[in-house]
Amino acid sequence: MLAVILADAPQADIRSALPLLSSTDLLIAADGGARHALNHGVTPHVIIGDLDSIQPAMLEIMQARKVEILRFPAAKNETDLELALLLAVERGADKIRILAALGGRPDMHMANQLLLTHPALIDRDVALLDGAWEVRLIRQHLEFQGNVGLRVSLLPLGDVGGVRTEGLRYPLRDEDLPIGPARGVSNEFAAANAQVSIRSGLLLAIIERELQAGYLA
Amino acid sequence: MLAVILADAPQADIRSALPLLSSTDLLIAADGGARHALNHGVTPHVIIGDLDSIQPAMLEIMQARKVEILRFPAAKNETDLELALLLAVERGADKIRILAALGGRPDMHMANQLLLTHPALIDRDVALLDGAWEVRLIRQHLEFQGNVGLRVSLLPLGDVGGVRTEGLRYPLRDEDLPIGPARGVSNEFAAANAQVSIRSGLLLAIIERELQAGYLA
Repeated sequence: MLAVILADAPQADIRSALPLLSSTDLLIAADGGARHALNHGVTPHVIIGDLDSIQPAMLEIMQARKVEILRFPAAKNETDLELALLLAVERGADKIRILAALGGRPDMHMANQLLLTHPALIDRDVALLDGAWEVRLIRQHLEFQGNVGLRVSLLPLGDVGGVRTEGLRYPLRDEDLPIGPARGVSNEFAAANAQVSIRSGLLLAIIERELQAGYLA
Repeated sequence: MLAVILADAPQADIRSALPLLSSTDLLIAADGGARHALNHGVTPHVIIGDLDSIQPAMLEIMQARKVEILRFPAAKNETDLELALLLAVERGADKIRILAALGGRPDMHMANQLLLTHPALIDRDVALLDGAWEVRLIRQHLEFQGNVGLRVSLLPLGDVGGVRTEGLRYPLRDEDLPIGPARGVSNEFAAANAQVSIRSGLLLAIIERELQAGYLA
């Protein structure tokens, strides 16, 4: 089951992923992220969070439309996006797409991407989408499609062992990537199909996707 | 010695740190980052990078002003910002401030922050500044000033052991922060002076700073 989550970044570019909003069985808005749905004429199934950033008028609309509202205290250990991810897993999502997670406060921008490493998401197909960009976590292996020349950046979160790539312009052949140096940045698709596998560690992949008529292909 | 580095993020907000530009002994522009200096009437001492993003007219101005130009091939292992950091260290900087590193391509935004973990920067006082925000890496201990109520987010890059805080609203007392869960996000200054120490790992601190007349206090 696919779950789509709308985070709350104010400047986020979610247009490229709009078809996902109406095609998902579970659309979760993290707090004020609900406005991204309403702005595009879509009503989320659930709103979750401390509800400190959603406008009261918008909350009333949601109540009138019988949207499920899960309110948490403000002084909690989880961010609203984290609560949304845990809910998606709890409700059986094996594929999760996160929108509107980038471009806001720098700390949230970073924290939202680090959430991909959350243990609750192991063995789920999770991606964070922003405009033409897709952010993925590689724990073992990832295969992905793109167009020759589009960018693929591989960013170690901690030291990563035994990186192997196929279909990239600058291949890695069982090499270690330590955290820090930017060696994995600005690689490129050399074929329509690319693969990355690692032996140990956590590797973030930030992938430039092809847009067709403005939407992710 | 203080070195200031201008990275190349197009939308970056460097105004809050402008006083640094004219007060530093070593102002390094990473490739097209030179325009951030010129836009504010300042000439960098050095331009470094593959020079694929600086405009030819701007490069001519730099040459006329006898700016030191260090050109590298495009197919290199380091990003331009990484080359700039290594140069700053090589020339003896013990304090480095990085501007214009956030808000550009999502992969560069992430890679630029991960550069704080570069082994060449161990024992240097390095911060990345963007508007009212300051990004720091904590390897052992960090003491920093702020205003009560401003935000302090602590983000583990890998698992971090034995986190202790002082002067924060939600204290941590010798606790471990695993990578992933966003528990360290949106802490706050509870005093004008805060401290964080860790026993192991790498902890990113993203700190909201006070602005005075638009400049970092």
